[in-house]
Amino acid sequence: MSQDFSTFASDCRHRVDSALDHHLPLGSDPTQLRAAMRYSLFNGGKRVRPILAYASALAINPLVDLALIDPVACALECLHSYSLVHDDLPAMDDDDLRRGKPTCHIAFNEASAILAGDGLQTLAFDLLTQTDLPASTQIQLVRQLASGSGAEGMVLGQAIDLAAVDHQLDLTQLENMHRHKTGALIRAAVAMGATAAGATPIQLHALDSYAAAIGLAFQVQDDILDVTADTATLGKQQGADIARNKPTYVSLLGLDTARDKATELHQQAQAALRDFGESATHLRQLARYIVERSN
Amino acid sequence: MSQDFSTFASDCRHRVDSALDHHLPLGSDPTQLRAAMRYSLFNGGKRVRPILAYASALAINPLVDLALIDPVACALECLHSYSLVHDDLPAMDDDDLRRGKPTCHIAFNEASAILAGDGLQTLAFDLLTQTDLPASTQIQLVRQLASGSGAEGMVLGQAIDLAAVDHQLDLTQLENMHRHKTGALIRAAVAMGATAAGATPIQLHALDSYAAAIGLAFQVQDDILDVTADTATLGKQQGADIARNKPTYVSLLGLDTARDKATELHQQAQAALRDFGESATHLRQLARYIVERSN
Repeated sequence: MSQDFSTFASDCRHRVDSALDHHLPLGSDPTQLRAAMRYSLFNGGKRVRPILAYASALAINPLVDLALIDPVACALECLHSYSLVHDDLPAMDDDDLRRGKPTCHIAFNEASAILAGDGLQTLAFDLLTQTDLPASTQIQLVRQLASGSGAEGMVLGQAIDLAAVDHQLDLTQLENMHRHKTGALIRAAVAMGATAAGATPIQLHALDSYAAAIGLAFQVQDDILDVTADTATLGKQQGADIARNKPTYVSLLGLDTARDKATELHQQAQAALRDFGESATHLRQLARYIVERSN
Repeated sequence: MSQDFSTFASDCRHRVDSALDHHLPLGSDPTQLRAAMRYSLFNGGKRVRPILAYASALAINPLVDLALIDPVACALECLHSYSLVHDDLPAMDDDDLRRGKPTCHIAFNEASAILAGDGLQTLAFDLLTQTDLPASTQIQLVRQLASGSGAEGMVLGQAIDLAAVDHQLDLTQLENMHRHKTGALIRAAVAMGATAAGATPIQLHALDSYAAAIGLAFQVQDDILDVTADTATLGKQQGADIARNKPTYVSLLGLDTARDKATELHQQAQAALRDFGESATHLRQLARYIVERSN
């Protein structure tokens, strides 16, 4: 990770963490609801979707006021966080550990985890109405988030994923699953940052190609790390997908071809940015980070 | 139920059912996601929240084009439906039966029920962006739905409810739980219908008093029916709340005082509508229906 990008990513993380803290104070909730929501939000996540939103806003307008993007970044992280909480539940992936810490239903209980996830999803949409952007832009953001995360996006991807356990998927089916499960929200993140900064349809189209490529690259790299990284670095059980008999890029393609695929997707992402100048530097660096990261 | 109101309610149910069918076609989803979402939506629900939205839109503007209200009504029902699906889960209320039919996680499985609920919540917000209303109105609707259903509304109410099992709540605490768990979304339904029809702040204020009263009345009546109606009429286990050692208005007040309370809340609701003319007829009838219903 270049020094430059590392500083940018760290600035983004501070921005979004501070905004999340502001939008979801612990307050005087007599239940554990807010505590469970905050536990899930502030668990050392990489904030990839917020960083994407900031970076694509800057690609469209290098002088954009990032305070306008903060609620968008928060919404994306709330949405992502809810999906992890529900995905970890016993009836779903049944994961006890996430980023080296007990998952929400282990730290609290199942009911609290279900409700915390539900509340985080609501908060995500609520936050999109708390910007100083024009109402028509806010509506576009709500639509983009819903389309990326709902029954035609992320939630469908999770349903496809669950239906795939113990079934032999081919590469096309695996890719379809990932396009929905993780790709759709990553595309939403890029589209939303750009939309908030006033992107034209042509710019949105180019950025969407970029986002589709890095979305898949992210997943290919996840599958590679599942077999190459150790549990401590990953913060979750190494080999978990293989143990669960879930199809992965590595199980279908082998490790070397999976690495080639990550490289190829990385090149596609860079090519999609060809008409952008300096302003897309962070997006370019982020694409590189995604295929080079070690956790 | 007056003949008049019965016709109105039935018209509303047809409108919202047909709109829901349009917005969530079964399609060619290879998973059970859409089937589970539709199963939960089309399970014979009373459509109280959609009826409230239509009735309050008409109270504000008797000539309102109800097609503008359809997506609002659908959003409310999707939101309500998601909350029931998650509420019925084993980790929550663990209910096998809802309106005389197997609950979603029994008919499908737990993972599908979690995802169906998640997808229904997303769809609710998505639908609010699919009206011909001005963008600023759409944003107001998103805010109202989020505020009624999220961690300061319905979801908080469910958290309070869960924390209350096996604890002795007093009347104030019980009321606080219900104000959030069911009251907040009922208030949102009334506010949203009225907002979509162009209500003034003063009108919204009056309607909110109405909604707060019928929200509580609805719950008091539910508690009364839990001990007086039989399982077949209720479509769920009679005495379920008592068996679960959950506090109810009847357990705290006794049956007679609970009935008095329902009557008193009904009168408050009618009083809140005093400045409305003929156009609020359906709202008045609905208040009466809520305390007179037998299931």
